[in-house]
Amino acid sequence: MSLREAIAELDVESLGDDMHALVADLFPICRSITGDGFRQTLAILDKRVPLEVHEVPSGTRAFDWTVPPEWNLRDAYVADLAGNRVIDVRASNLHVMSYSVPTRRRVTRSELDEHLHWLPEHPEWIPYRTSYYRPDWGFCLSERQRAGLSDPEYDVVVDSTLEDGSLTYGELVVPGETQDEVLVTAHACHPSMANDNLSGVALVAFLAEILATTRPRRSYRFLLIPGTIGSITWLSRNEAVVPRIVAGLVVACVGDGGPLTYKSSQRGDALVDRAAAHVMRRRGGSVRAFTPFGYDERQFNSPGFDLPVGCLSRTPHGEFPEYHTSADDLELVRPESLAGSLAAALDIVRILDEDAAYVNRHPKGEPQLGSRGLYPSTGGRQAEEGVLAMLWVLNQSNGGRSLLDIADRAALPFDAIQTAATTLAEAGLLAVSSERGDDDG
Amino acid sequence: MSLREAIAELDVESLGDDMHALVADLFPICRSITGDGFRQTLAILDKRVPLEVHEVPSGTRAFDWTVPPEWNLRDAYVADLAGNRVIDVRASNLHVMSYSVPTRRRVTRSELDEHLHWLPEHPEWIPYRTSYYRPDWGFCLSERQRAGLSDPEYDVVVDSTLEDGSLTYGELVVPGETQDEVLVTAHACHPSMANDNLSGVALVAFLAEILATTRPRRSYRFLLIPGTIGSITWLSRNEAVVPRIVAGLVVACVGDGGPLTYKSSQRGDALVDRAAAHVMRRRGGSVRAFTPFGYDERQFNSPGFDLPVGCLSRTPHGEFPEYHTSADDLELVRPESLAGSLAAALDIVRILDEDAAYVNRHPKGEPQLGSRGLYPSTGGRQAEEGVLAMLWVLNQSNGGRSLLDIADRAALPFDAIQTAATTLAEAGLLAVSSERGDDDG
Amino acid sequence: MSLREAIAELDVESLGDDMHALVADLFPICRSITGDGFRQTLAILDKRVPLEVHEVPSGTRAFDWTVPPEWNLRDAYVADLAGNRVIDVRASNLHVMSYSVPTRRRVTRSELDEHLHWLPEHPEWIPYRTSYYRPDWGFCLSERQRAGLSDPEYDVVVDSTLEDGSLTYGELVVPGETQDEVLVTAHACHPSMANDNLSGVALVAFLAEILATTRPRRSYRFLLIPGTIGSITWLSRNEAVVPRIVAGLVVACVGDGGPLTYKSSQRGDALVDRAAAHVMRRRGGSVRAFTPFGYDERQFNSPGFDLPVGCLSRTPHGEFPEYHTSADDLELVRPESLAGSLAAALDIVRILDEDAAYVNRHPKGEPQLGSRGLYPSTGGRQAEEGVLAMLWVLNQSNGGRSLLDIADRAALPFDAIQTAATTLAEAGLLAVSSERGDDDG
Repeated sequence: MSLREAIAELDVESLGDDMHALVADLFPICRSITGDGFRQTLAILDKRVPLEVHEVPSGTRAFDWTVPPEWNLRDAYVADLAGNRVIDVRASNLHVMSYSVPTRRRVTRSELDEHLHWLPEHPEWIPYRTSYYRPDWGFCLSERQRAGLSDPEYDVVVDSTLEDGSLTYGELVVPGETQDEVLVTAHACHPSMANDNLSGVALVAFLAEILATTRPRRSYRFLLIPGTIGSITWLSRNEAVVPRIVAGLVVACVGDGGPLTYKSSQRGDALVDRAAAHVMRRRGGSVRAFTPFGYDERQFNSPGFDLPVGCLSRTPHGEFPEYHTSADDLELVRPESLAGSLAAALDIVRILDEDAAYVNRHPKGEPQLGSRGLYPSTGGRQAEEGVLAMLWVLNQSNGGRSLLDIADRAALPFDAIQTAATTLAEAGLLAVSSERGDDDG
Repeated sequence: MSLREAIAELDVESLGDDMHALVADLFPICRSITGDGFRQTLAILDKRVPLEVHEVPSGTRAFDWTVPPEWNLRDAYVADLAGNRVIDVRASNLHVMSYSVPTRRRVTRSELDEHLHWLPEHPEWIPYRTSYYRPDWGFCLSERQRAGLSDPEYDVVVDSTLEDGSLTYGELVVPGETQDEVLVTAHACHPSMANDNLSGVALVAFLAEILATTRPRRSYRFLLIPGTIGSITWLSRNEAVVPRIVAGLVVACVGDGGPLTYKSSQRGDALVDRAAAHVMRRRGGSVRAFTPFGYDERQFNSPGFDLPVGCLSRTPHGEFPEYHTSADDLELVRPESLAGSLAAALDIVRILDEDAAYVNRHPKGEPQLGSRGLYPSTGGRQAEEGVLAMLWVLNQSNGGRSLLDIADRAALPFDAIQTAATTLAEAGLLAVSSERGDDDG
Repeated sequence: MSLREAIAELDVESLGDDMHALVADLFPICRSITGDGFRQTLAILDKRVPLEVHEVPSGTRAFDWTVPPEWNLRDAYVADLAGNRVIDVRASNLHVMSYSVPTRRRVTRSELDEHLHWLPEHPEWIPYRTSYYRPDWGFCLSERQRAGLSDPEYDVVVDSTLEDGSLTYGELVVPGETQDEVLVTAHACHPSMANDNLSGVALVAFLAEILATTRPRRSYRFLLIPGTIGSITWLSRNEAVVPRIVAGLVVACVGDGGPLTYKSSQRGDALVDRAAAHVMRRRGGSVRAFTPFGYDERQFNSPGFDLPVGCLSRTPHGEFPEYHTSADDLELVRPESLAGSLAAALDIVRILDEDAAYVNRHPKGEPQLGSRGLYPSTGGRQAEEGVLAMLWVLNQSNGGRSLLDIADRAALPFDAIQTAATTLAEAGLLAVSSERGDDDG
């Protein structure tokens, strides 16, 4: 089945509830950049889409980085001397700073405070903190909870392991007619937070599931990886794949109630940037210039690769108050937002797949559309969108301009221009251009 | 006489009444894309400017098109069974759909309705309809008139001929110093409608009459043609001329009370586009991006030719409510609008004719203008427009920038810059550049 | 000492009073484009910075110009027949038109009027007028003063000399590591007016004094010249220097209370233009497009040189009402404005001196900043400006983009980007690029 046919058969809006249910399934797991939580996450996703699971041993070099020891957590709490757990990871994964080293000691209240993280501006919320590369331990808690810690001493227990193991990531390649690849990634390393980034994980999983049923023009590569170290590790192991990547999307924070946002690649005018900008215009979203911070697009856009990879979000990272706190929960993420984000991603994917350049085979004057049944036979009235789209395609199809170029210039939907091109090609008026290939012009 | 001198001698504003009188002379004629109405129109125009009349036989191939049979109309009406003409082409040319096939039959009221065209939103107006390429007959009438048709049967008579004959168009070439050509065209195929497009016909005729008295730098070619099939036919018979066309204007709807509008060529930055944009800024008009619908610019801008031909209008086609109806009459068109449009066209033509690049012959520092009487001898005051224009011309004249480039950068009128250049050239400070030729850079 | 260190040691804001004192010292002198007033001005400046004084003989050719006779004034007045001086140059230098020829005669009141200059719109102010190249005499006075001239005859005395002598200008070159030069000039030919242009003279003198203590990367050339004829004369004698000039600033009207204004060079996108635009954005100033009138940038930007020389001002010439009148006095010029303008000039100079392109030595993915102590070890929070600046420098440093390019793209201060680059270079993550040299790319 072609990508277009597969998408036409979908009722994308109806998928929002299923996407939300997947987010809810994944929410309780204690994930980090390595460890069993990440593996458990991939196992749940594997029920939807067959993921290839990769394990990269601790200590493996990845450019300037080294895969860290694997971290697993059995238990973590702070207890008063009577043995009551006053901070307890069983209540929330966020209570323990990710990658906290194994710890079992009695500390004074003031010593404890040096290891606590809280948010004065949000007294009910627990912040999310990590210390992947500096050995340390810490607990995160609400301001209100901290106010109750009035004993002189506490017992701290972090029952974690930090040992040689591996970094895990999941990968799925959907082969297309060409070897050109579109990369779609999400980071899946955050513990119990829904928008950042289980929403992204769900979108990538659903998109992969849809595309896996099709034979698209380009190949699609889906990655579910730990943030930063995951993309760097993947890049270091796949340098041969990199030259084939013609477009990419990092997906994150796509479940909240905000409007769609696309952050451009460093290049700014790559095909994926123009495709996404077209979709944002049509769906009321906005486009932002590239910045070298955010998610894994940082790595894909580093100057040694400079890949045309943008980032699809709703409210961008750090701009919603619940960001990196316990308030980024299952209520923040809405089924209709998830479905709308998936629909936007499918729109972008369709443009990536269908954009092509044609040559008008009757370039001298307009061909006579009326005699081919393509033009209203009674003259004198104003033209309709379908006719305008055909006239635009005929006028602009000199072999060097693609359908997306034409749609943007005509300020018409890509779909209308693509439909017009199909009609004209069927009528023998348009031929595929050999001037522009499949690459990212 | 130079073009500049000829224009300087004119009182363009006073020509509005004459232009309107010409529109009024041409208004009653029953025109179509072929036939005696078109010939009669050219005969009237020939009294002002000597037109070469071309006849292209029916059946002649023109790229993807074929010149249609010639259509002539003797009479057309719908009569009740008592013989009263209830729709009568003698009342308005628009009553019969153009190219209606010969018909003489009795029809039921409901059968008649399938051949009627009316405008519910404008109950008093008769619409204009055509069926050039699908054999059919039809009548156009006001909504009010249609409401009165309450008999069960009517007699329909279309006393037309649709036979081998020819397509007619008029042409005038005013030779210039170079073979480069400026193309100025109007469609002259519409029956009794004043703005679309007798206003355009009148402007082209007056412009041709003015230029015919001069020896311009470039050659000018004026065409009065039937819309679409006329430009396609002309192009197919003049492929050798096409490479010489460096600029062009399609003129239509230039008589209504709206502000001036220039629609750019497909290229968007051709000399004619920049010249017209300059004139629009000076005359309170606006510039629109190219679209591949409208008038014969569709054909000139088709990808096989891609000629730098724009369209000069006031209110563009389809945007005034009277468009393609009987309300596009002699009152809609105003003498002052016609004259103002002619003045704008002359401004554009002057830039096309006079734009040139110069070289500053004293490029190191400013030359001493004061010693040549070109600069106020008492210093300390602010400079005037004439002095500023000279300083701009001296600063920018490196051989690669034309006077229009300079006028646009300086935000000064082309006329001021051209006058400054003439003054400086006469003072020996400026020489014509050989870097830029006459072509459309 | 490096330029950066020298600037870091300065308290620029505190220099405003000294700059104003210098303006006040220079104010009483009767200056013109030649003569002892100009020499006296340079002698006072020489106490701050060692100026090389050049004397160019009258009659020397300078491109299209000739160095005029030297003008000196001993006395000038208009007296009534009773011998009372009713206009007296001892009251204001502006009373005599600059370059007035020696004159001693009795004139009627109406004959006198032909030689008077006044400002009806400002009845208390004396205008500034010159007649350098047409032999004439004249007096400037307030409207009120003129109203009192009711006698039938007056005695006119201009006790001037206009004889072979020389044109004088001052020059200081601060040698840098490279022969590339930055040109900084002010016209110093105006008599008692403070903003135009003793403010410019003071800024150039202070800037020269600061830079003379340093060893900058580029060489700096400071010129204090008479307007127009001075820059033309300098250019004609220094054609071998011209190719080394990579940036330049003409400084004028930098003491009034208006916001900063930078007028671009003709090129518009030269390094100095981009540096100044960056500083204007940071300091609330504005950028204007080049125009070929104003000050000596007219000459430096003439097409035979087309040097990247802009103009730094506060309120531009002719836009403050006191321009070229006696109201341009010591009160119009404010210490804080002078100091702010000097600070802006130093900001521009720092960018000219420090802008460079680097290459990221770990271009594949981000290098691990945390392990080098350059990244916060606790993750989860938003990044700070210093970290963002490092990420921008790493992402953009492909050898072809300079720090200023990066600062502009990141919308961060040049200083933050430059500091980040220094930090990264010290950590071995960045190397100087050989792709871009010291020239004005």
